[in-house]
Amino acid sequence: MTQVERKADDSSLLSALSRAIHGVWSPVLVPVNDDFSIDAERFLSHARWLLDQGCHGLALFGTTSEANSFSLEERMSLLESALAAGIDPQQLMVGTGCCALPDSVRLTRHAVDNGCKKVLMLPPFYYKGVSDAGLYRSFAEVIERVGDDQLRVLFYHFPKLSGVPITVGLIELLLADYPGVIAGLKDSSGDWANTADLIERFPEMSIFPGSERYLLQGLRHGGAGCITATANVNASGARGVWDAWADNSEDLEARDQDMIAARTAIEAYPVIPAQKFLLARHRTDPQWQRVRPPLLDLDEKQGAELLESLAKIDFALN
Amino acid sequence: MTQVERKADDSSLLSALSRAIHGVWSPVLVPVNDDFSIDAERFLSHARWLLDQGCHGLALFGTTSEANSFSLEERMSLLESALAAGIDPQQLMVGTGCCALPDSVRLTRHAVDNGCKKVLMLPPFYYKGVSDAGLYRSFAEVIERVGDDQLRVLFYHFPKLSGVPITVGLIELLLADYPGVIAGLKDSSGDWANTADLIERFPEMSIFPGSERYLLQGLRHGGAGCITATANVNASGARGVWDAWADNSEDLEARDQDMIAARTAIEAYPVIPAQKFLLARHRTDPQWQRVRPPLLDLDEKQGAELLESLAKIDFALN
Repeated sequence: MTQVERKADDSSLLSALSRAIHGVWSPVLVPVNDDFSIDAERFLSHARWLLDQGCHGLALFGTTSEANSFSLEERMSLLESALAAGIDPQQLMVGTGCCALPDSVRLTRHAVDNGCKKVLMLPPFYYKGVSDAGLYRSFAEVIERVGDDQLRVLFYHFPKLSGVPITVGLIELLLADYPGVIAGLKDSSGDWANTADLIERFPEMSIFPGSERYLLQGLRHGGAGCITATANVNASGARGVWDAWADNSEDLEARDQDMIAARTAIEAYPVIPAQKFLLARHRTDPQWQRVRPPLLDLDEKQGAELLESLAKIDFALN
Repeated sequence: MTQVERKADDSSLLSALSRAIHGVWSPVLVPVNDDFSIDAERFLSHARWLLDQGCHGLALFGTTSEANSFSLEERMSLLESALAAGIDPQQLMVGTGCCALPDSVRLTRHAVDNGCKKVLMLPPFYYKGVSDAGLYRSFAEVIERVGDDQLRVLFYHFPKLSGVPITVGLIELLLADYPGVIAGLKDSSGDWANTADLIERFPEMSIFPGSERYLLQGLRHGGAGCITATANVNASGARGVWDAWADNSEDLEARDQDMIAARTAIEAYPVIPAQKFLLARHRTDPQWQRVRPPLLDLDEKQGAELLESLAKIDFALN
């Protein structure tokens, strides 16, 4: 059986491989200088490394990129740098969902005008308890104002941080009016039951678990792959699982277990500082440790504990 | 006893009247056009009306102003319009706390450079569960980068919306390094015990309950007044309570009860759309009803119910 023919275990489900947007995607950590400004050079080098490690694509300006801690100008400038350096816009998914409607429109238009048609959108996340009708209006206004029929919107469902869930009702409203444009969802709820429900309800969308913990489970149920923070330090592990699944390899379960063990070790700490710490150590480059406020660099004690727990498992950066 | 001599009931406490920043402040509703852009003319007229109704000052770009739904440029432009129209910068408190450090710096510097030294700052509110040390670094960076010793920072504590509380520990850290600059706090927790605790712990700060429900209770315990959304439709009621307290009038309790009854009626509905609805009706100006997404205009049924419940009480706009 070839990769393209390979189906999800339930043959009624679409295979990830047949989906327009699929694979192992890494949200990209954004290194900063001592003054907390973006270090574009280190960023580009890291982005290329992630693609070399097997990522199908990069999600730029999600939570892991500390996106909401950067100004619109910083975000647009870094995207332009990435494209100028030769990163393929097809391999990018750009975070563009802001609290303010004109900001979301501006970032989305900027991405699309630069050839990045796939955007990962947080809902406006300041007001809580807002109605689906209000959120519909917000997303619809962005789509209408950007007015590009090649735009592909992936929802970013991360209720623990945004406080504003992307509900089934909201997706249905938007899918009805913008079929094709509404293309997918990153489910960072950590709730597999929710991911499974979305996969079943919306076969026309690429549903990505927000953690490699659910990569394999997702693939077996018709998920599109994963978009996972910890690919920043374990892209090869996640891609290994993807390939083993696609090739139906015997070592699939063992690879999955190793990958999940690494995830478990890392997510016991604040994930962004923890991964910057690991990259700093792996590259003998202390500058990598730095995060922008309000986040705080991992302290030495936490770092030592993290290294100790990772040393016990098969992990790419050991 | 003159107003200036009047003390809080516990004579060990400072009176609101002796505090540098005190009184009844109204966060200002921001009217929008059909395309959701800001209607500066209606805004200015409303701001002047609020001052005429007795507000000591106006908080521009808090939650009630839908601040986070507007771009930085929209916010700065409206502030400039207000100042150009003759609104006294001393009577303004400008919301400048954003998720992104450079945005908070930019808005704060803009306010200060335009003579508005008092800013009301949300913490960076995307990441949840961040440490006080990380939040300290965020506020301290803003203060350092703005570098104006006339800057007066009031914290905006609204955990239900921001998801990021302003803790006693954070205040202590910042007060130690920036005495004088750290000037106050708006407590929108709705938790009187928290407000009372802050008043007691930080006598050097102006602590404002975020609702007129606690105006009188606050004044009796050394609070600075209130900064309350519903002053947009009941500034005269809140100012009436303030004056009755300052003058030790016999009708103080009766005024307080009427004011709280109005608050109770309004906050049974989404407070921003509900107040825009009431102003639209009071001014026979339907345009006032409009809110920016993700909020939604109050529907007709809700509006009718609200009017019915307000009709039963002594309310300024009836």
